[in-house]
Amino acid sequence: MDPSSAPISPDPAADLPLLPLEELRERAPLVQAITNTVVTNFTANALLALGAAPAMVDVPQEAGRFAGVADALLVNLGTPHRETREAMLEAVTAAAAAGTPWVLDPVAVGSLPVRTPLAQRLLDLRPSVVRGNASEVLAVAGGGEGGRGVDSTLRSDEVAEVAADLARRTGGVVAVSGEVDVVTDGTTTIRVGGGSAMLTQVTGGGCALGAAVAALAGTRGDGLLTATVTAHRLWAVASERAAAGARGPGSFAVGFLDELASLGTTDLRATGSR
Amino acid sequence: MDPSSAPISPDPAADLPLLPLEELRERAPLVQAITNTVVTNFTANALLALGAAPAMVDVPQEAGRFAGVADALLVNLGTPHRETREAMLEAVTAAAAAGTPWVLDPVAVGSLPVRTPLAQRLLDLRPSVVRGNASEVLAVAGGGEGGRGVDSTLRSDEVAEVAADLARRTGGVVAVSGEVDVVTDGTTTIRVGGGSAMLTQVTGGGCALGAAVAALAGTRGDGLLTATVTAHRLWAVASERAAAGARGPGSFAVGFLDELASLGTTDLRATGSR
Amino acid sequence: MDPSSAPISPDPAADLPLLPLEELRERAPLVQAITNTVVTNFTANALLALGAAPAMVDVPQEAGRFAGVADALLVNLGTPHRETREAMLEAVTAAAAAGTPWVLDPVAVGSLPVRTPLAQRLLDLRPSVVRGNASEVLAVAGGGEGGRGVDSTLRSDEVAEVAADLARRTGGVVAVSGEVDVVTDGTTTIRVGGGSAMLTQVTGGGCALGAAVAALAGTRGDGLLTATVTAHRLWAVASERAAAGARGPGSFAVGFLDELASLGTTDLRATGSR
Repeated sequence: MDPSSAPISPDPAADLPLLPLEELRERAPLVQAITNTVVTNFTANALLALGAAPAMVDVPQEAGRFAGVADALLVNLGTPHRETREAMLEAVTAAAAAGTPWVLDPVAVGSLPVRTPLAQRLLDLRPSVVRGNASEVLAVAGGGEGGRGVDSTLRSDEVAEVAADLARRTGGVVAVSGEVDVVTDGTTTIRVGGGSAMLTQVTGGGCALGAAVAALAGTRGDGLLTATVTAHRLWAVASERAAAGARGPGSFAVGFLDELASLGTTDLRATGSR
Repeated sequence: MDPSSAPISPDPAADLPLLPLEELRERAPLVQAITNTVVTNFTANALLALGAAPAMVDVPQEAGRFAGVADALLVNLGTPHRETREAMLEAVTAAAAAGTPWVLDPVAVGSLPVRTPLAQRLLDLRPSVVRGNASEVLAVAGGGEGGRGVDSTLRSDEVAEVAADLARRTGGVVAVSGEVDVVTDGTTTIRVGGGSAMLTQVTGGGCALGAAVAALAGTRGDGLLTATVTAHRLWAVASERAAAGARGPGSFAVGFLDELASLGTTDLRATGSR
Repeated sequence: MDPSSAPISPDPAADLPLLPLEELRERAPLVQAITNTVVTNFTANALLALGAAPAMVDVPQEAGRFAGVADALLVNLGTPHRETREAMLEAVTAAAAAGTPWVLDPVAVGSLPVRTPLAQRLLDLRPSVVRGNASEVLAVAGGGEGGRGVDSTLRSDEVAEVAADLARRTGGVVAVSGEVDVVTDGTTTIRVGGGSAMLTQVTGGGCALGAAVAALAGTRGDGLLTATVTAHRLWAVASERAAAGARGPGSFAVGFLDELASLGTTDLRATGSR
């Protein structure tokens, strides 16, 4: 059996390093999101439900200035229009100069000819966190052609080593979403379990997770690994709870936002599926 | 009485040609949607609920490449920005070259000076399916100034002949949404009844129907008329069921997505209003 | 105590000048909305729930032509992309020429270098209504650097005098959203109370209010102050009712749209929190 494809159990929820959600709500970090046009609304609503303050400032000349005052920045490559690309580079440059944490979500990177070189250019600017599915992380690390549209054709643990290498290269954190999420800073690798597959039936589930990573990274100036693990565990628990009360993907999405607003840190420690 | 305006009963649901929804869910067609900025989210969620894989690849240089691998393409003219127009022409050219089915939704075409000539240019590239309301179909066929914004000022059966003529011209299918939907390939014309008027109180109800037509057309390489009829009947039944459980347009939209995910082909055969 | 910061009670709901919602539903005003990409969907759904006919015609060459036939126009500066800016200026010029009421929502205006001069330029074209939070109204009046992203750092009654001055300058109405809303035409100033803070946990709550102001202003050719007060009172009552039935911000947003569709003018007269 190929060890790289062996299934690996997630770490027990009781042992996960978690940043208190209460701290996020008190700080209400200002999160600048330059994201794709499909998920702007859901992303803003997820950030508001969490207790963060979203701001979609994605226009050149404004994006850089705003990144200088924001607590965190999300850059998501889902619909990289010309003006958006300009805004991204401007914002990332300003965030890097200000020491503001920023998250790169390389949506569908691989063979698509606009976003793929853009992702490489942004990677050189050393994102605090890279978040994607296994195909996207492999592609952004230079090892694959990407998945099928926005879907991964690999499991997250198949790219755990690639993710750790990438984290050492950027000096940040890399998170791979999947049935089990893999979060690594190149030294420590943590597996986050749980979550409902219904999240994949709602557009923007993963994109909004990238925004949540930014919000948690912007809550404290340190602890990127903890912030990233917390966001992933929050997504797992909120999606399980929302799925339990849902009649289908429509009511699931509604319930998911409700859960984001009500969950506390102790809920994230609870183990077992519901 | 003018025969062209005579009300015509829909075909009994038991007799409609239908493509099994189970086949769509198994195939999970990759549907590229280049659509307007108002409805991207709802459209992606409707496609996911149906079991299709949406991808909003709408950037020039990427749109054409992606259309070469997608199973189907939707082009919706609701907000035809410059870059989007480029992407549309690129994608349609690639889809036509690859023999990939594509759907044209000529939103509010008529007197508006950007989308109207664009619709004509796209029509020359012979869309597999044209889907719109009566005013839009009349306008795109060259016979009208369009409706009032996105609303039709005509009934669908008033343009049944125009739709059939248009289908013969494109060599594809033309579908006219209304109280009774008219679907024609120029030889056979099928009327699909049922549906709730609440669908008109949710933005994107018609736009997402265009995406569902693309998904069903992308499920099989043949049977465009059957695919189009199936999507329209699915919309009718899902909207009736969602309306029965809704307190207003907000809960209707949520329930509609829930219904899309749960309906089977036998549900589409059930007759009578609920 | 500084009188400008003294808390001021809202006017009793029984005394507010209100435009009958039934009149809006009968007229079904065609509302052109050139708004930000985060809230297009929610804005269109709010307008539909109200009984208006939304049209997001935001492309240069089309925007001006459409403004000439629309009943009202909304211009929201949330994501002022290049093409959108062109469309805004074109539409406002046409609306002004046709005597069509138009609403300016100066989202996050203050120090951001694209939208701030754009807001000044639009202000010179004399908007029928300016709607924003206290920081935005102060900034657009030339007196402040704006708030924190889209959030105000001031209370609405702190800028009541500034708002009245601004209304005298534009010859229109200025509305300041806050815990108590302040609506003024420079001569008469009306305070509208009520409302749930949950509205601030949903993106687009304020932006869609701007659209509702446009819808009500487009229902009649006169009575801008009454139209604006009506929209604000409607938001207050709908948000209170939706909050009473909500489990969190997700279900609140759904219930809010349901309420918009069902409320009548008598509901707006009811006093007291529920």
